[in-house]
Amino acid sequence: MKLKRIMKTIVLTGMVTFVASAAYAGQGKKDFQASHSAHPKYVFFFLGDGMSQSQIQATEAYLTQSGGGSAREAADLLKPENRLNMSKMPVAGIQTTFDAHALMTDSASSATAFASGIKTLSGVIGMNDGKTISYKSIAQLAHEQGRKVGIVTSVSLDHATPAAYYASVSNRGYMNNIATQLANSGYEFFGGGGLVRPTGATAPDTNNNIWNLLSSNGYEVRNTKALIEDLLINPVDKVVAINPWLQDASAMPYAIDMDQQPDETFTLAEMTEIAIEVLSANKGLKKGFFLMVEGGKIDWACHANDAMATIGDMIDFDDAIAEALAFYAAHPRDTLIVVTGDHETGGMTVGHATTGYTAYYDRILGQKNSFQYFGANQWAAHEAANEAAVCPNVLNTDNLATNTDMLNLMSTEFGLNWNDLNPYQKKKLEDAYDMSLCETNSSLPSENTLLYGGYEPIIVTINHILNERASIGWTSYSHTGVPVPVFAQGREAENFYGFYDNTDIAKKLARIMGIKQSLPVVK
Amino acid sequence: MKLKRIMKTIVLTGMVTFVASAAYAGQGKKDFQASHSAHPKYVFFFLGDGMSQSQIQATEAYLTQSGGGSAREAADLLKPENRLNMSKMPVAGIQTTFDAHALMTDSASSATAFASGIKTLSGVIGMNDGKTISYKSIAQLAHEQGRKVGIVTSVSLDHATPAAYYASVSNRGYMNNIATQLANSGYEFFGGGGLVRPTGATAPDTNNNIWNLLSSNGYEVRNTKALIEDLLINPVDKVVAINPWLQDASAMPYAIDMDQQPDETFTLAEMTEIAIEVLSANKGLKKGFFLMVEGGKIDWACHANDAMATIGDMIDFDDAIAEALAFYAAHPRDTLIVVTGDHETGGMTVGHATTGYTAYYDRILGQKNSFQYFGANQWAAHEAANEAAVCPNVLNTDNLATNTDMLNLMSTEFGLNWNDLNPYQKKKLEDAYDMSLCETNSSLPSENTLLYGGYEPIIVTINHILNERASIGWTSYSHTGVPVPVFAQGREAENFYGFYDNTDIAKKLARIMGIKQSLPVVK
Repeated sequence: MKLKRIMKTIVLTGMVTFVASAAYAGQGKKDFQASHSAHPKYVFFFLGDGMSQSQIQATEAYLTQSGGGSAREAADLLKPENRLNMSKMPVAGIQTTFDAHALMTDSASSATAFASGIKTLSGVIGMNDGKTISYKSIAQLAHEQGRKVGIVTSVSLDHATPAAYYASVSNRGYMNNIATQLANSGYEFFGGGGLVRPTGATAPDTNNNIWNLLSSNGYEVRNTKALIEDLLINPVDKVVAINPWLQDASAMPYAIDMDQQPDETFTLAEMTEIAIEVLSANKGLKKGFFLMVEGGKIDWACHANDAMATIGDMIDFDDAIAEALAFYAAHPRDTLIVVTGDHETGGMTVGHATTGYTAYYDRILGQKNSFQYFGANQWAAHEAANEAAVCPNVLNTDNLATNTDMLNLMSTEFGLNWNDLNPYQKKKLEDAYDMSLCETNSSLPSENTLLYGGYEPIIVTINHILNERASIGWTSYSHTGVPVPVFAQGREAENFYGFYDNTDIAKKLARIMGIKQSLPVVK
Repeated sequence: MKLKRIMKTIVLTGMVTFVASAAYAGQGKKDFQASHSAHPKYVFFFLGDGMSQSQIQATEAYLTQSGGGSAREAADLLKPENRLNMSKMPVAGIQTTFDAHALMTDSASSATAFASGIKTLSGVIGMNDGKTISYKSIAQLAHEQGRKVGIVTSVSLDHATPAAYYASVSNRGYMNNIATQLANSGYEFFGGGGLVRPTGATAPDTNNNIWNLLSSNGYEVRNTKALIEDLLINPVDKVVAINPWLQDASAMPYAIDMDQQPDETFTLAEMTEIAIEVLSANKGLKKGFFLMVEGGKIDWACHANDAMATIGDMIDFDDAIAEALAFYAAHPRDTLIVVTGDHETGGMTVGHATTGYTAYYDRILGQKNSFQYFGANQWAAHEAANEAAVCPNVLNTDNLATNTDMLNLMSTEFGLNWNDLNPYQKKKLEDAYDMSLCETNSSLPSENTLLYGGYEPIIVTINHILNERASIGWTSYSHTGVPVPVFAQGREAENFYGFYDNTDIAKKLARIMGIKQSLPVVK
């Protein structure tokens, strides 16, 4: 499919300074001279979970292609309409992502770095690596000083990244404990996915009824399109807005899947727009606000090595940034927007051995939905209909090569045509099909582990081959340790130039927001 | 092996501003206010061919490990002694690398971007993509204005990257033509590798005797250690310094191999030190100089997916930067140092599916030499001794598993022990061994193409498995299209903050050096 970018992005494109060569001499330099006196009232922190330079460049190459151009024309790659909002921002820097003990951080320790300015263990939120000291986040400190706070994420609201802004907990898996701290935070806006463990948790987690707690703490919980959209006109003081369609693990659907149930979902951009409305309503503009927006399923798509699902969520995330840029356009002297990722996921590369020096992004345009949607729908149906017939003699025949229904699904759902593949690609698909359908194949277990990770073998293999044919590679189902770019625009944006550590981002933001205590601040 | 960093680097470490959090507030900010009047006299441009963020982060993780620490301790990763000189520089930015028609540039078009400020076709040097117009490089323009110019590279002096600074040619393969332009350049210093086609070229290339031409143009050509070292004490006006040991394609040896013949080779750092001496001798300090230093074999090691050879050349390249930093320390107000890469090579990732969230850089410490050295020596000897016995029944037995000599070589030369491997890794090595020794195996040709690229199957497979066990992944034998970091220090360094295109680097450097014409400049 050709993912469409929302109109606001396109309208904004002309407004945003194009950074390629003129950026530093323009916006950047002006900022350096003019903005050292006061604190920006409106601070946006956009976090692309699992987003590094490869995800950004691949998405821009996709935009070039999907717009009818050729990814092989540099003129197209430089055109503003093919650039993401983030990469056109006037300020760019780089941050290192490793945590206290791992070159490859997880989202809990990286979010703790961004929120509290400390390195900790993977899995730990808002605490030191000994799990003995709890720290306040910049969101908590800003809230104590009177700023409104909003938290938006495409995954569940109690997931590690958003949690670091309101919770301290020794294990990211204690999601009832996290949700309890959410309900006690007093923040004005939570929006996106739902809660994984609102009731029915077991020790060592807490077991509070989060819905009751939210209610007694004055929160409205809304989860229909009409009720949430109404916030644009009639904002309330404290609200938890849960997307009607929760696809997997209480998360919003992948952006690429949203047109399957458009009446049951918001985009991340729409959820961000609503958050801005709520935060800026009534007294919101007096002391300003801090809004954290996470594109959380970029990471999940990268874990599954699904490039098109990644790109879809990258574009939705970038459209959410467009909402902040629209706000910036109305409040340019009082607004700061910072965009970064917490780590790279998947070992994604902008090139592959099978394609060498040529990119073929047109070859991924045929993928209609995410691995997740395909698995829960078309694949589930195919599996149910074919398992009994195939599996008794699974290793004896070319089960995939002779199955018209599956070959058609590969073609119609992914744009992957059997006759375009080389013998090794066909063999890998055959092996994966046998494993998915019948839980066996003729490969070594260690080969299967490497080729499939924990994913549905046939689907991850379709994605691997689809992606490698486009010149997109993957080396891992986990996070990797490569440093990540940072982009910034607006008041005090120049603080984000250069090369620094992820913990420095919290310290910079604290200073910029006029938080009186130096990070880290013990709770 | 544990690669040693030269002493100068370690001495300098304390001198260079540590950038992590204080960089922008320190050196960067001062530069912004103080240095807009004059042009820096001494400009260094360091180009790591094939070097992007992954190569840098992997090398720093290696340094952490080789120093006796654990790559899993963030405290170690942040220690100055484990950071490369480049990543400690006060200014950092990001540049896009695609060329006029390819998302994945080659070194000819990227060097043309850096040298002349234009996008062109892969394979083309100093000309437009129609191959009809020749452009001057910033080195030529600086030379015309009286600056001395030096070119140092670890690969041959007529290779694409150095060539873009003195030559315009429609095809990087016309190396006699390129060398002719080298000999006619008038530049004061060329040093590093040799020439690929000094005589005996055939049409459509030119066929000049380059040695005669150099001589008639007043160049001394030196190629012994004593004669080249003598330049430190008795510099001459115009010299071509060719490393005594030319390992492959007229290039200097990989840094990791240098201790095999230390009396026959300089390091890139030593060659850089000599270049600086020659350029700064006599009248050199009057109008200043421009020195380009290429770490060219970082790229070659990445093409071969050899992480340890990559890291060795990364460290030598960074040691060469230390030479410039030593010069900077003596001339801080007049010196600018810029460091970047031309593109990423190999789709290198800092993580792998087999190791997940843990890095094991200790597992690569046992590799003694590069793929190139091993292939030309230990492997060549093993192949000659075993081919006749194994190949008549190549597909019938476990040829590698039963060959003590080869298993010993893997252990002693790479630190890769058969018993540590899983069945799939063993199978891949068996298949590769058969293909290397007997030019056949039981795999599909398309599988062999993917797994070996154009490299010696057993050696590239040893490297793949050695690297993946350390948590280093590769997806390609070619260049990839991911943007690349830029580091800068010294006068006007602040121009290299932000996100921009590779062509902007030439334009920035031209402006900074006071070149009177706007790029591009037609020859």
